[in-house]
Amino acid sequence: MAERGDREAFVTLATNDTYALGCLVLGNSLRQRAQTTRKLVVMITSGVTQPMRNQLSRVFDMIYDVNLLDSRDAANLQLLGRPDLSVTFTKLHCWRLTMFDKAVFLDADTLVLQNVDELFDREELSAAPDAGWPDCFNSGVFVFRPSEETYDSLLKFAMSQGSFDGGDQGLLNMYFRDWATKDIAKHLPFIYNVVSQAFYSYLPAFTQFKDFVKIVHFIGATKPWHHPYNTATKEVTPLPESGHNKDYLQIWWDIFMTLVQPTLDPSLREQMGG
Amino acid sequence: MAERGDREAFVTLATNDTYALGCLVLGNSLRQRAQTTRKLVVMITSGVTQPMRNQLSRVFDMIYDVNLLDSRDAANLQLLGRPDLSVTFTKLHCWRLTMFDKAVFLDADTLVLQNVDELFDREELSAAPDAGWPDCFNSGVFVFRPSEETYDSLLKFAMSQGSFDGGDQGLLNMYFRDWATKDIAKHLPFIYNVVSQAFYSYLPAFTQFKDFVKIVHFIGATKPWHHPYNTATKEVTPLPESGHNKDYLQIWWDIFMTLVQPTLDPSLREQMGG
Ligand SMILES: O=c1ccn([C@@H]2O[C@H](COP(=O)(O)OP(=O)(O)O)[C@@H](O)[C@H]2O)c(=O)[nH]1
Ligand SMILES: O=c1ccn([C@@H]2O[C@H](COP(=O)(O)OP(=O)(O)O)[C@@H](O)[C@H]2O)c(=O)[nH]1
Ligand SMILES: [Mn+2]
Ligand SMILES: [Mn+2]
Repeated sequence: MAERGDREAFVTLATNDTYALGCLVLGNSLRQRAQTTRKLVVMITSGVTQPMRNQLSRVFDMIYDVNLLDSRDAANLQLLGRPDLSVTFTKLHCWRLTMFDKAVFLDADTLVLQNVDELFDREELSAAPDAGWPDCFNSGVFVFRPSEETYDSLLKFAMSQGSFDGGDQGLLNMYFRDWATKDIAKHLPFIYNVVSQAFYSYLPAFTQFKDFVKIVHFIGATKPWHHPYNTATKEVTPLPESGHNKDYLQIWWDIFMTLVQPTLDPSLREQMGG
Repeated sequence: MAERGDREAFVTLATNDTYALGCLVLGNSLRQRAQTTRKLVVMITSGVTQPMRNQLSRVFDMIYDVNLLDSRDAANLQLLGRPDLSVTFTKLHCWRLTMFDKAVFLDADTLVLQNVDELFDREELSAAPDAGWPDCFNSGVFVFRPSEETYDSLLKFAMSQGSFDGGDQGLLNMYFRDWATKDIAKHLPFIYNVVSQAFYSYLPAFTQFKDFVKIVHFIGATKPWHHPYNTATKEVTPLPESGHNKDYLQIWWDIFMTLVQPTLDPSLREQMGG
């Protein structure tokens, strides 16, 4: 029988080379910093270039190609006039990874600071509250159980209901709608998905619980890779409008510069101004 | 035996006339708009003037005088060099209302949109997540059981531990520290304590759940009573820096202008520019 570590995986997603850079830092944070014993999977679409695929294969155990839209989904989406759901649907593909018994999805803009392998003891669907509307969970980090049945059922649900926020978070919150009220064990502590802006919204709590934070999530339009980095001082410059915490940005860039950038294909390196 | 409605109460607090205006709107929202069958209690300190006391007694069943600091607390606080905890301690006095079996504390900057009497079916300590750090509850709305023992124990705890945010929220979250992980029934749905800025942090969720919102909370330095109101058009002007939702501000002002302002003592009316 296979080891538990082989039947459980962290899964992330990139539809282009820029988000793939996030996946590379995330993968390295899981392996080098958090010393995970589980498999690492990255789902990619055709928007990711061949040099980047090569790069991803150095860090991830498995590269899982997904279509931005399945042919059958495309037809249905067209019928329903909901082409906006296409990126959302891409994330749902994680349920098709049935070679794993259990998995943890992580957005490409997350960063793992400490070992979180204990997440595999949780059941589907476990997730942390969203700081904006805390009766919704944030869909940047969640524990799930791959299953074709669930995948089909999620697709059907998506096509009949749509998503109240046009993304996967609104959809998943409606599908797993008893999350807020049913089982406290499915509430991951917030330290498993701390928005990098949290120090701003409630500084004393952030200060109090800072050392316990295990996963940071750089939500919003401005991602760590959009920030200026000074190669001489090795310091990142926070952008006030992004609201991201400087310490977390620095950790992201430290990993990027030491473990990712040196082996990047020159064509990719250009993109990052490295 | 007394009716259940007589043994259960909504409790709020004002240490000055300005916050007392908030209490008046809150009390009217509970009675007129939400048609509560429970008692209304306001705790006040000597900072509230006599005309305002009279005004409060029109709306509240009971005015409960509390000292900003009890003499015994003062001595202890002095010893510990923690005079900053004095306003925090004032809120704790609600646990001394032992003429009630159960009570719901509401900040003076909350507004009740729909009947919430079902809150009395919850146990101590029930509260909604804080949007800033959702593993903490927000202490602007909570269900509790008055008890001298709990009061004493809270005071002792406060004096030995202090409060990580210098206020009652940090203190209560440390005292009731298993709130985040133990019992989902003690998680009030967010609709019982929606920060008025929530429409900004996650608009789609706000739009989706807007009709279910039962209690609005105007957190932050800028309160509804700080906003300019045009008596000709009967419209409030939102202040962008406060981030409060215009619809909610308007409801607050509608109640203020129809049910509070007309009977205000002239000396108080001046303060509001009415
Ligand atoms: O163009 C895109 C947008 C999103 N994503 C993936 O979908 C996740 C969710 O999007 P994002 O993190 O940007 O949303 P936020 O967390 O800021 O709401 C990303 O982390 C990526 O894994 C992607 O691959 N390409
Ligand atoms: O000077 C003060 C400050 C606070 N309060 C009471 O304590 C509550 C909590 O303070 P506030 O609502 O201003 O804090 P926020 O909800 O903005 O964090 C108020 O609603 C009032 O009931 C008061 O009476 N006087
Ligand atoms: Mn994200
Ligand atoms: Mn308040």
